[in-house]
Amino acid sequence: MGSSRPQRADARTNRERILNVAEEVFGKGGQSASTEEVARLANVGIATVFRHFPTKAALLEAVLVQRFDRLRAQAETLFHATDPGTAFFDFFSHLVADAAGKIAIGEALLEAGGDNPGDAAQASDGLRRAVGALLQHAQRAGAVRDDVELPEVYALLVATSRASAHTHLKEEVRDRMLAIVFDGLAPLRNSRPQLKI
Amino acid sequence: MGSSRPQRADARTNRERILNVAEEVFGKGGQSASTEEVARLANVGIATVFRHFPTKAALLEAVLVQRFDRLRAQAETLFHATDPGTAFFDFFSHLVADAAGKIAIGEALLEAGGDNPGDAAQASDGLRRAVGALLQHAQRAGAVRDDVELPEVYALLVATSRASAHTHLKEEVRDRMLAIVFDGLAPLRNSRPQLKI
Repeated sequence: MGSSRPQRADARTNRERILNVAEEVFGKGGQSASTEEVARLANVGIATVFRHFPTKAALLEAVLVQRFDRLRAQAETLFHATDPGTAFFDFFSHLVADAAGKIAIGEALLEAGGDNPGDAAQASDGLRRAVGALLQHAQRAGAVRDDVELPEVYALLVATSRASAHTHLKEEVRDRMLAIVFDGLAPLRNSRPQLKI
Repeated sequence: MGSSRPQRADARTNRERILNVAEEVFGKGGQSASTEEVARLANVGIATVFRHFPTKAALLEAVLVQRFDRLRAQAETLFHATDPGTAFFDFFSHLVADAAGKIAIGEALLEAGGDNPGDAAQASDGLRRAVGALLQHAQRAGAVRDDVELPEVYALLVATSRASAHTHLKEEVRDRMLAIVFDGLAPLRNSRPQLKI
């Protein structure tokens, strides 16, 4: 490992910097986002960007993979939370708050022609599985009703994410929307807890 | 009224037929939908389409207005329903099931450059107000909890509509997703009713 040549290290650093800048630039959405802007802000030549990412679609896909992988890793740190209910509901809220950037990047990827299911789809599946595990833990802990399953819970996650990303919901309205969903997920026949979101 | 010339009546009939065909064609989504196809299926010349709707954006906007107005009228027929709770939840489900076409038309309108808030935005507001009235009636009848307001309820409606339109949800998963939302909207401290959706 220590024997990798300096150029290799530079290349790795460049790749990371390009990815992070691209996540920032494309995450804001808008038509103006371009690979040129990414190169300029990452302080590298456009040739360097294209050496790492031959097409805009390849760059966008790598950004999405990085984002999904990071979210999945965050979910995994919660697998052994002492309060699985809070862990589940907090992570659900976190994903919804995080959604705008991810959706903008996904839409830029579609526009750039990268619509074949590839690495991003796989990374997205990884996140979905991690959310499924958090859901099961929360159900076992009695914080989420037993009779719901991942497909409808994930549909609600996608639904509330899209709504807050697309309709410029005020944070307060978004939180009140999530509170309704979380009450719907709470166990039946209990007086429902006031969920902190 | 009886004195309107036959051409006038024909024009009105043509306009309606074009609108209905356009709703069908553009509601399916896809890039291939065109004004030419609308003319062909409505059995009129392309010049007739353009006489009624000078631009594709004008046609799409008229289609959206018609759709929003029809949904608002349906909501209004429920204002005096004997069971305001069922009326509210059934209409919520109906809107979500209806969403795919509406969203496809709205996206085609955006693509056609019709992004200024116009008649469609006004018609959309009319539908929102009608849903607000149904919500209030359901709250007064004790079928929906008192502490929710239209912004978050409408956000949930938009959220679940977008999710079922975009992610090709199976009908069963959509219904289970809505059941969670409806449970979240049910009054607190009751054993929750099994909502039929």
